[in-house]
Amino acid sequence: MLWSGWGDPARAAALPEPTVGLLRDLLGVRPADAAPVDLAAVDVAPSRLSPDELAALAEAVGGAEHVRTDAEARIRHTRGKSTPDLLRIRAGETSDAPDAVVLPGGHDEVLAVLRACAAARVAVVPFGGGTSVVGGLAPAAPGGVDAFVALDLRRMDALAELDEVSRTAVLQPGLRGPAAEALLAERGYTLGHFPQSYEWASVGGFAAARSSGQASAGYGRFDDMVVGLTVATPEGTLDLGRAPKSAAGPDLRQLVLGSEGAFGVITSVRVRIRPVPAATAYEGWRFASFGAGTAALRRLAQDGPLPAVLRLSDEAETMVGLADPAAIGASAAGSSASAGALAVLGFEGTPDEIADRRARAAEVLARAGGEPLGAAPGEKWEHGRFDAPYLRDALLDVGAFVETLETATFWSDVPALYEAVRCALIGALSGAGTPPLVMCHISHVYAAGASLYFTIVSAQGPDPVAHWAKAKHAACDAILAAGGTISHHHGVGADHRDWYAREIGPLGSAVLRAVKDRLDPAGILNPGILVPPAEPGADPSSSRPPGAGE
Amino acid sequence: MLWSGWGDPARAAALPEPTVGLLRDLLGVRPADAAPVDLAAVDVAPSRLSPDELAALAEAVGGAEHVRTDAEARIRHTRGKSTPDLLRIRAGETSDAPDAVVLPGGHDEVLAVLRACAAARVAVVPFGGGTSVVGGLAPAAPGGVDAFVALDLRRMDALAELDEVSRTAVLQPGLRGPAAEALLAERGYTLGHFPQSYEWASVGGFAAARSSGQASAGYGRFDDMVVGLTVATPEGTLDLGRAPKSAAGPDLRQLVLGSEGAFGVITSVRVRIRPVPAATAYEGWRFASFGAGTAALRRLAQDGPLPAVLRLSDEAETMVGLADPAAIGASAAGSSASAGALAVLGFEGTPDEIADRRARAAEVLARAGGEPLGAAPGEKWEHGRFDAPYLRDALLDVGAFVETLETATFWSDVPALYEAVRCALIGALSGAGTPPLVMCHISHVYAAGASLYFTIVSAQGPDPVAHWAKAKHAACDAILAAGGTISHHHGVGADHRDWYAREIGPLGSAVLRAVKDRLDPAGILNPGILVPPAEPGADPSSSRPPGAGE
Repeated sequence: MLWSGWGDPARAAALPEPTVGLLRDLLGVRPADAAPVDLAAVDVAPSRLSPDELAALAEAVGGAEHVRTDAEARIRHTRGKSTPDLLRIRAGETSDAPDAVVLPGGHDEVLAVLRACAAARVAVVPFGGGTSVVGGLAPAAPGGVDAFVALDLRRMDALAELDEVSRTAVLQPGLRGPAAEALLAERGYTLGHFPQSYEWASVGGFAAARSSGQASAGYGRFDDMVVGLTVATPEGTLDLGRAPKSAAGPDLRQLVLGSEGAFGVITSVRVRIRPVPAATAYEGWRFASFGAGTAALRRLAQDGPLPAVLRLSDEAETMVGLADPAAIGASAAGSSASAGALAVLGFEGTPDEIADRRARAAEVLARAGGEPLGAAPGEKWEHGRFDAPYLRDALLDVGAFVETLETATFWSDVPALYEAVRCALIGALSGAGTPPLVMCHISHVYAAGASLYFTIVSAQGPDPVAHWAKAKHAACDAILAAGGTISHHHGVGADHRDWYAREIGPLGSAVLRAVKDRLDPAGILNPGILVPPAEPGADPSSSRPPGAGE
Repeated sequence: MLWSGWGDPARAAALPEPTVGLLRDLLGVRPADAAPVDLAAVDVAPSRLSPDELAALAEAVGGAEHVRTDAEARIRHTRGKSTPDLLRIRAGETSDAPDAVVLPGGHDEVLAVLRACAAARVAVVPFGGGTSVVGGLAPAAPGGVDAFVALDLRRMDALAELDEVSRTAVLQPGLRGPAAEALLAERGYTLGHFPQSYEWASVGGFAAARSSGQASAGYGRFDDMVVGLTVATPEGTLDLGRAPKSAAGPDLRQLVLGSEGAFGVITSVRVRIRPVPAATAYEGWRFASFGAGTAALRRLAQDGPLPAVLRLSDEAETMVGLADPAAIGASAAGSSASAGALAVLGFEGTPDEIADRRARAAEVLARAGGEPLGAAPGEKWEHGRFDAPYLRDALLDVGAFVETLETATFWSDVPALYEAVRCALIGALSGAGTPPLVMCHISHVYAAGASLYFTIVSAQGPDPVAHWAKAKHAACDAILAAGGTISHHHGVGADHRDWYAREIGPLGSAVLRAVKDRLDPAGILNPGILVPPAEPGADPSSSRPPGAGE
């Protein structure tokens, strides 16, 4: 992966000149001193780990070759892939670099690393694909912990078990999406989990951050797929999941899922798998407005038939045709193909099943005012489904700022949440002199609600990191005020932690801290991530919520 | 509800003489001194609550009329509805009677009761329908807590909100199944949650014990339906669920679901609802064996179409035709209608949808060796779906012992789990001189696994409670040894607690205790239920689980 951007440098796209012109004319994007510095020129502070600490780590992972302190390894494990992360690393800013990169070979080695680090009070940041966009890889430094290691799980990359009767597979956490799919495909199976980060993100990260893939309507979210988990913690092992579902107490799997490395390191997951579908078919539909399309998606989510992929772009995203930079000019020029709100549907199964479901879905969508656009828009989306982060690199290169954020809520609150977040972003950025293009899509639907995913493009301005922090703050406030969750699938990390604390309330925060204190009494696991710090003297009581009686 | 049995005394059935004869001849059931004593003759110890404590409770719930200390109220809140519970209460044994029954009118009153009880160190047992079959209503008396109140939630019985756009409803916890369905039906909706306890169990209990209804294949389990929760704890309020799904940290809703009153009192749930189906259709299928039928159910669970109801009785249960006592004689006499393993399927939707799904399911089942039996067996099951607990009263009356237990696991382990539990029960009871009839069915299926529900009938013997305790112990050991979960839908309570601790391991138990200690520092909430006690000096570390790498 590109140390200063996304993915394979060979796939980085340069923007065509008409696009650059439009960005300049519409958003005031000016060529900035925006090119990344050279990797070789990037400096990193000396590792704070002592020779004894490094020796203990080497012993834990079976050899010094699995403990790396060279500058390149440390730089490549610095922070994640949010736009502020990229802007800082492109500028050569490595203050959050880990003091070492440690590569365990299995569960017992992870336990050994945690024991060694707890003893030395060295923090541990689990590292899968390194694709966090919420600051999940740069720990804070609370009292007593001042050095940290990145625990890179890439050596734990096996398909440990495949149970064809139960249709489950046990996967190790370091498997990246394509590698996991390749191992399963050899036996005729698929996970069906394709988030935008699919090419680089890892199975452990999918679980730790509650990833949701583009085919979530058909396959479920990753947290739906997980039926078992093993977790290494400083206090020992958790081994959870004896049945798909159980009434034996709280579902502790759901306490580990989403724990972002703050409670332990996920060392294997048992997941549902499915046979590779015989065929797939994508298609596009146009709605007069995002609101009309939203209502149509709700019909499919509540009464079916539900395609495997179901997405809807708002008017702005439809116009820009985000996945195809070359089309930006054509769209803005007013081609009627880019009017209204574009929906993409993806169907999977046997050709007969697909035909049946497409026909029934078409009936629902037509009744809801949709206009069928045939296969082309769907296939175009499918072709570019993992491309947006590469495009971001190109936009940064020409001096544009681009970032995303997302939320979810119940259907009846979706319109107000959409407006609130859009207004907050446009208001904050325009007020600061960088009027943005704000686009949105729905990409995950449930019977009771849906996600909203926003993409923001603007000029970088003189200090884009600080500039964006204010807009992001306004958007997060708007999300909470409108009743949304602070993240539907990116996670909490450090960036959302304060809003997360408000979302779950002081008592919810206190529960998380109690769990963390029990599993990680030394506080070495991803400190500052996810778990809100204790508020001295805070009273966790809150007033009566609506609907609870009286 | 019958204080000494199940449900409406008017519906209690007397067993026909041929059935009694068969029980006598086959199982050695002998008329015992088995009739319940008179309610008026039952004694209960004086309440241990002081006048000050009672006054504080009355203040918390808005009046002394909502705090009951009369013998009948206390007896009616003594324990739950397991067979040992019934045998003890039928004998007039009331040592576990609550010291008072407290009836709060809303969330704030629940908070006030919890505060008052924490201050006085009086334990609180949340009481919904009182239908626990796992000892969930009889607290242990750990240090410092010696009196307890039953917190009966029946006054909190409103449909607080119905959101037709999001298709969710906010329900208060004291609503029993039929009342909740009636309120929703006025607006054209249903929860679709019909456990065998449906007629008496409550919404709060469904949530607190992770209930699973007979239509779980179509509607999901109750824990799938819950998208939001409010919880009153001694430390304040938890208000959870801003979207159907979220990546904002661990799913704390799933920590409350299944917490059985040990973490707090659920004061409202927001649940998914669906339009009342236009039609329903039930049908029966016969398979040569339970194994063949299990494989057929797995096909439907993994590749569809999935009916709303999907059940399969093993050969013994098929022969006995459990729901129809009058048929026991006919079946045992060798009618071919009772050979093999009977499956029941229930379909819901429009008549066209039902016809389509039935046809596709029929194709799958026929290919798997099934023989269609038409509507009659399905309709007979549907007619008697809530009757088994009434039948139990009649069986106890004639000196028989009857009890159930259940588990779940992954499909590949289902056959071994089935054999292990059957053998453990037959071995334990036969060895003790009461050879049992052991029957089993699958009633809940998932893509990755299924539940197994066992019904045991035997002679009562001289001390049926102690006698059963040994057999139950053997069955629970067998469940864990064969990889099953200790409960798929009955819950943990006091009865399963020790096996639950083994299931989640010492570190999982420690996490539960940490959560409980944070939410209930005085230890007043359902003490002894669910949460395993701390083992002094226990080391929560465990060895490496399979599949987690070297």
